[in-house]
Amino acid sequence: MSQHLPANMVLPRTGIGIDVHAFAPAEDPQPLWLGGLFWAGEQGLSGHSDGDCVAHAAADALFSACGIGDLGTHFGTDRPEFAGASGVKLLGEAARIVRAAGFEIGNVAVQFVANRPKFGPRREESQRVLSEAANAPVSVSATTSDGLGFTGRGEGISAVATALVYPVTVSEPGPAKGAPHG
Amino acid sequence: MSQHLPANMVLPRTGIGIDVHAFAPAEDPQPLWLGGLFWAGEQGLSGHSDGDCVAHAAADALFSACGIGDLGTHFGTDRPEFAGASGVKLLGEAARIVRAAGFEIGNVAVQFVANRPKFGPRREESQRVLSEAANAPVSVSATTSDGLGFTGRGEGISAVATALVYPVTVSEPGPAKGAPHG
Amino acid sequence: MSQHLPANMVLPRTGIGIDVHAFAPAEDPQPLWLGGLFWAGEQGLSGHSDGDCVAHAAADALFSACGIGDLGTHFGTDRPEFAGASGVKLLGEAARIVRAAGFEIGNVAVQFVANRPKFGPRREESQRVLSEAANAPVSVSATTSDGLGFTGRGEGISAVATALVYPVTVSEPGPAKGAPHG
Repeated sequence: MSQHLPANMVLPRTGIGIDVHAFAPAEDPQPLWLGGLFWAGEQGLSGHSDGDCVAHAAADALFSACGIGDLGTHFGTDRPEFAGASGVKLLGEAARIVRAAGFEIGNVAVQFVANRPKFGPRREESQRVLSEAANAPVSVSATTSDGLGFTGRGEGISAVATALVYPVTVSEPGPAKGAPHG
Repeated sequence: MSQHLPANMVLPRTGIGIDVHAFAPAEDPQPLWLGGLFWAGEQGLSGHSDGDCVAHAAADALFSACGIGDLGTHFGTDRPEFAGASGVKLLGEAARIVRAAGFEIGNVAVQFVANRPKFGPRREESQRVLSEAANAPVSVSATTSDGLGFTGRGEGISAVATALVYPVTVSEPGPAKGAPHG
Repeated sequence: MSQHLPANMVLPRTGIGIDVHAFAPAEDPQPLWLGGLFWAGEQGLSGHSDGDCVAHAAADALFSACGIGDLGTHFGTDRPEFAGASGVKLLGEAARIVRAAGFEIGNVAVQFVANRPKFGPRREESQRVLSEAANAPVSVSATTSDGLGFTGRGEGISAVATALVYPVTVSEPGPAKGAPHG
């Protein structure tokens, strides 16, 4: 890309992912899945899948970093085996697709915006579940929108994620000619 | 910046860009330009430019990564030659400005949120056009906001972008004293 | 993480931060603090702190990149000394926490969405104040949402930030055995 950067430098690529799901209506009780966890006693999100917008945004950020599309590209109607799949399953499959496309995952970071559930006590548990699914560090954090917008009115949850990936080439067998950065 | 990082390491810088445009009112038919492409039969976005919020968010993410402002800084009223310019032209000019400021572009990733147009079939075309404009990889993906907020009501389109850039120094002429990482 | 990446490569980690604050009601005049600056003659934001959503998003992006939580984790009710603290103070403390957790900061980039204040003339001043607080480059830019949503209606300000951090190891005393990348 540039003659100004060291030719042998492994350049990370950044990606962005956004996902929004509406809460199911009160007359239609649904389980809440968010950040790879089940939240007992909370109203769930609508969606063909489990509506886990944290996991979905993470998957989209990975696809985005690689330039290979989005959830619709990979889990659309032509892959019926993913209809209704959990967010954790989709994130795991996204990570597999990304690696098969020639990238290694640096990390993924997601923040979601919602009034509920209270996330702090289960944050580390969520990070463990999603990091295991992606086989790479996934951080999750939470905030509110101070009563504004659809998240402030409690109509839904939005999540934004970034990811770093690295294009990798499988090492050739043979004598080492020096480390890539040495 | 830090004595803990290798002095000769080329550190990427991350940037963020956001852009929102409203759809023009129904009684004022406008062409839709999005992701560097013309979308026949779709209602267009309002704006002094072509309203291409995907290209605009990408340009803002580049400026952000370099710490040199935003669209208003560079394409404001003091540069009338950019009044009404296409998103592709603005992105190309943003990339030129960024390089003139001493940065090389790693990649740019954009995701937009909208009910329409149906993006998947033309995603690769959009990525080609924007990558050519920036002379660097630009990925584009799409999602919806599940009926929520102004994007869910079809009032407009929002786009969020991240970018990575690298500060570069033009090599001095003369005998090479070792590669930057060697 | 991967056998495909050079073992001695210092991998950056990306993070994301979002913050939203509502403007205080007109009958309750408040000072506006945004991007580390006081904005005379502008209505302020609500919040227990100064409501500086730019500084808050920056701090959250740093925490996110390290996977160590968010503002609520670090400045919650169990740390009453930060009740009412300025955004600049919170960002400075966030940077200290991040470094104490074993990370160096690459850069932070924030873009906020609002109709007011007019940011361009004071952008560089804001970047100086926040960069000094974080002891790392912080870029700030601004945009509008074209009249849409809560930012378009002037109900509040939203900010989105990304950050890059690097896991570091404190150098052992003793003879240098070669730089990490040399």
